[in-house]
Amino acid sequence: MSCSATPLRLYAGRLATGSSAYASSWCTCSAHKSFDKTVGRAMSTTAAGARVMQAAVPTTENGSAGSDAPVLRLQRVPVPELKGPNQVLLKVLGTAVNRADLLQKRGRYPPPPGASEILGLEAFGKVEASNVDSFRPGDEVIALLQGGGYASYAVTDSATLIKLDPYPEYYLSFDASLGKFERRGPDRVAACAGIAEAFLTAYQLLKFDPSLGNASPGETVLIHAGASGVGLAAIQTARELGLKVLVTAGSQAKVQACMQLGASRGWVYRTQPVEMLVDFCGGPESVDIVLDCVGSSYVEIHPQVLRRHGRWVLFGTLGGTRGNLDLSQILRKNIRLVGTTLRARPLAYREALVREWSTFASPRFASGVLLPVVDANGIFPLSESEAAHTYVEKSSNIGKVILRVDV
Amino acid sequence: MSCSATPLRLYAGRLATGSSAYASSWCTCSAHKSFDKTVGRAMSTTAAGARVMQAAVPTTENGSAGSDAPVLRLQRVPVPELKGPNQVLLKVLGTAVNRADLLQKRGRYPPPPGASEILGLEAFGKVEASNVDSFRPGDEVIALLQGGGYASYAVTDSATLIKLDPYPEYYLSFDASLGKFERRGPDRVAACAGIAEAFLTAYQLLKFDPSLGNASPGETVLIHAGASGVGLAAIQTARELGLKVLVTAGSQAKVQACMQLGASRGWVYRTQPVEMLVDFCGGPESVDIVLDCVGSSYVEIHPQVLRRHGRWVLFGTLGGTRGNLDLSQILRKNIRLVGTTLRARPLAYREALVREWSTFASPRFASGVLLPVVDANGIFPLSESEAAHTYVEKSSNIGKVILRVDV
Repeated sequence: MSCSATPLRLYAGRLATGSSAYASSWCTCSAHKSFDKTVGRAMSTTAAGARVMQAAVPTTENGSAGSDAPVLRLQRVPVPELKGPNQVLLKVLGTAVNRADLLQKRGRYPPPPGASEILGLEAFGKVEASNVDSFRPGDEVIALLQGGGYASYAVTDSATLIKLDPYPEYYLSFDASLGKFERRGPDRVAACAGIAEAFLTAYQLLKFDPSLGNASPGETVLIHAGASGVGLAAIQTARELGLKVLVTAGSQAKVQACMQLGASRGWVYRTQPVEMLVDFCGGPESVDIVLDCVGSSYVEIHPQVLRRHGRWVLFGTLGGTRGNLDLSQILRKNIRLVGTTLRARPLAYREALVREWSTFASPRFASGVLLPVVDANGIFPLSESEAAHTYVEKSSNIGKVILRVDV
Repeated sequence: MSCSATPLRLYAGRLATGSSAYASSWCTCSAHKSFDKTVGRAMSTTAAGARVMQAAVPTTENGSAGSDAPVLRLQRVPVPELKGPNQVLLKVLGTAVNRADLLQKRGRYPPPPGASEILGLEAFGKVEASNVDSFRPGDEVIALLQGGGYASYAVTDSATLIKLDPYPEYYLSFDASLGKFERRGPDRVAACAGIAEAFLTAYQLLKFDPSLGNASPGETVLIHAGASGVGLAAIQTARELGLKVLVTAGSQAKVQACMQLGASRGWVYRTQPVEMLVDFCGGPESVDIVLDCVGSSYVEIHPQVLRRHGRWVLFGTLGGTRGNLDLSQILRKNIRLVGTTLRARPLAYREALVREWSTFASPRFASGVLLPVVDANGIFPLSESEAAHTYVEKSSNIGKVILRVDV
């Protein structure tokens, strides 16, 4: 059963920093009547009758003194509408902070055409309304979003929803004073809200897409920012794929965390000159795959450490966007450098990734072989999104930083 | 019928610049007795009984005054031996000059393990002896070599031999004074000696290997050094694949030649600042594939002109090996930079390329849709290999420079 009619279309203003009108529209077909009542309870309406919700929105109104840098504040914005026959409206219970969100807040990572302009690339939540049979109101889901997670409600294509069976109730947090992980929970929202972007990205980079890492068992992968959310998901994924894992991280505690999840060696980049990384990796031509979210500072190093047919997968430029590249090594060793962002991929790509990853990951989450990692101090309410951003910006976190959404 | 025995193994000295012993050995099986007699007539023997032949070998003995740069001179060297069950001994009738030869002469492009240290990556010749049924003495063949072409005899794996039916007898040469191509021949050696490396490289870069150009009809390719041997083969190949072709070249005459073979536009790089290339291509994000044999001078340009999912295929670094790379464009546009050299690829790869290309190219050569292009002044005897190198080094040529081998 599906419906695509939008008999009541109400536009209600614009986001403080956005340029698009946010629209709310509800279907009046029989299947949606009960939904409409449910949503009605959770939402306010404007004078014009549009449903509104809370979202953490970039604004300069309450910015820090003397700065025009945008900060996140809760604002009332229109609830997004179900536009296509395959769409689902989620009540968001939790989302998580990604580095991309920090860029987007500053206008440096615009959403792809058609995507929500609200931040948030992942969610754990409950289906509120659905245009597809496979997801019904009340279903719990993990969602890979192109945007919109920092809000009470989000719309997404059902193809990018994941049902894990069972959902993880527990997660790991690293206790730096003890130098080890502890298990926390049960807390399904905290455990599940940060899975999608980290684990799907890791799987995409390493295995899903033959034009990226294309890993084979026995190969060696170098993972930068190993203690980040994506980093720890990539370490676990690489370990499950039979890879040898080398990591870089910002502190000895972070290296400890990485090694406890499967890295064989870790390198604290803050305390050593960058050229020492070649020795750390085992000398020139010792690495098959690099997962690079750093960029410029390692441009000199990667062509050295990569073996023949090495894959250099660029998915971020935290360290800068420019670098002096040695093309002779690219040529001689048949090295491949390829950039990728998951959000901008076509729906069919994201759908295929979600399906293949679910097969890979679902039994591993069920058995506890794969584990969500949430920073020990990394759970914030949506109203404190700006504090969560500051925490991530300082690279304080080991694992994901979660935003609990109950507004 | 095959044989792998080497009952008579004779080592006869070393190449002037090489470090490996060159060995000659002949099988005494019945199939090879007649061959042995044939070869005996064409070869000399040393006092120790080893068969010797002529090869153009790098030497500093007769170098230009005041210079230690190696120059090519004919020398007597041992005839290579049939080592494996799939090998074939060719009487070389013609070979051709590749840029890689110029590097190898100076010790900057060492042959892969097991390959001949003699220069020469392609040949047209006659089978003298064969360990496989599919090639018999007297067969004419085109050969993709890992080395050894600059000599009277060369050994290669039969998997990299090509029988074209019929072989081209005619070729094109560009008459700069008339501004157009003229047809020359019949001269099967001149027409066929320079086909293998140029056309197989072009097909590899554009179509054969999905990790390289992976061209689709309607896409746009930018081909640097369009009037080189590989360049003119790539223009013709790209045209046959339904691509729109943009080229760069060193002179207006070269651009004319490129456009007559299928390029839609040409850019004379000597007369314009490099950043103008963006406008020439049609602005940013106007190119799907770059075939790059230049390297450094275009490192700033290629990420700009490439579209989303653009492929930047590096197969040479004529312009230098270093460049300032903008990683943000690599990331945002999902650009792939990949280096490749054909010679270093495994045999199975070269074999598959030869097979697929033969299917593509053989009917097109037969019908004259594909045409060998030989420079108007570009046919030299093997004894004048050094002059041929100088000619190529000055980028004087439009199309291939051929070495006729009748020594």
